Amino acid sequence: MAAFRATVLTLYPDMFPGHLGASLAGKAMERGDWSLDTVQIRDFATDRHRTVDDTPAGGGAGMVLKPDVLARAIDSVAADTRPRLLMSPRGRPLTQKRVRELAEGEGLVIVCGRFEGVDQRVIDARGLEEVSIGDYILSGGEPAALILLDAIVRIIPGVMGNASSGLNESFEHGLLEHPHYTRPQVFEGAEIPAVLTSGNHAAIERWRMEEALRLTQERRPDLLSRD
Amino acid sequence: MAAFRATVLTLYPDMFPGHLGASLAGKAMERGDWSLDTVQIRDFATDRHRTVDDTPAGGGAGMVLKPDVLARAIDSVAADTRPRLLMSPRGRPLTQKRVRELAEGEGLVIVCGRFEGVDQRVIDARGLEEVSIGDYILSGGEPAALILLDAIVRIIPGVMGNASSGLNESFEHGLLEHPHYTRPQVFEGAEIPAVLTSGNHAAIERWRMEEALRLTQERRPDLLSRD
Repeated sequence: MAAFRATVLTLYPDMFPGHLGASLAGKAMERGDWSLDTVQIRDFATDRHRTVDDTPAGGGAGMVLKPDVLARAIDSVAADTRPRLLMSPRGRPLTQKRVRELAEGEGLVIVCGRFEGVDQRVIDARGLEEVSIGDYILSGGEPAALILLDAIVRIIPGVMGNASSGLNESFEHGLLEHPHYTRPQVFEGAEIPAVLTSGNHAAIERWRMEEALRLTQERRPDLLSRD
Repeated sequence: MAAFRATVLTLYPDMFPGHLGASLAGKAMERGDWSLDTVQIRDFATDRHRTVDDTPAGGGAGMVLKPDVLARAIDSVAADTRPRLLMSPRGRPLTQKRVRELAEGEGLVIVCGRFEGVDQRVIDARGLEEVSIGDYILSGGEPAALILLDAIVRIIPGVMGNASSGLNESFEHGLLEHPHYTRPQVFEGAEIPAVLTSGNHAAIERWRMEEALRLTQERRPDLLSRD
């Protein structure tokens, strides 16, 4: 299987690989399990000042990323079948299901927006899939791209040390995960729930499922009504 | 007003300030508008091997962060009234409203989980507020902490160059933002919508509100039913 290839289009290439250069993701990159390259959008400006943004049509605060410059940057990436994503708070919320789909592919191209936004015409013309990592506003698309890549890279085969880890986790079964406990047996007067040290594996599994359901009902009932 | 102070408890202090050291957030940090310090959780292990994790009670994959070690790390942070957050996929989903509340405070203490999770007893005993940045699994709490700080820092007074920016944005009115356009007037045969170049400000505002509503209905009807 070919290694997973990520290409990031950004005005801040220095932000990459960021924290992905450390820890398990960085080691996996050194081994060649995945690769990350960046394209500086500004290199595709054509005027003397290398302008990448302009004022919004209709007025208002902020600046808008120019469609012609961004289109040239996108077109500079070798034509392939990798999905093209635009990190944007207007996008479809990222889910673990979409992360898994992307991780099973050959890679992806990520466009990082900045300023007030990106001209709608280049989003349409280049078929960018708008993806949001959450209902909050960031300084730009770069931090969001780092999150998307972190979620993807950790499930690429060979990246995590323990192959069995990552299975019994929040969202993998559509539920929040049950609470965890470890030694010491007594911490500040609180004991580990007795069932967990009972050695009764069926009872332990039942307790964990009940706790996962209880937590999900309490905190995220919206997850239970999703298809 | 005192500068916003963030303290991050982590096993990977090298991941900070990460991308927050660049761009506007980094300049604001240099000016003293906000500060970030890290606490290495491993420094509070007491055994010869500096053990921070142990196997989960009841069995299963992965390791659990020990409650006694983490409690000592938390207690090492000078007692103050800053909120204490634990980045966790089991937490309450982060919203722009919570980001604003946190940004208006004096700062925060962020605990970054790793491994399979954190012992529930230390979450309870130290009153950690579990916060999730989205319904996907990351390599650890560190990338999530960087996202939370990015969202907060950009709205701390003085950080963004343009004080009027950041107002007319997704979620600030409970809606996704309208599409953006800028020059050139014609891009690959597509024109900027005529209303935006009409000079009729009332019509422009109406169009933007209608587009914001339309997009939100199409993509995120869940936002319209929130209180």
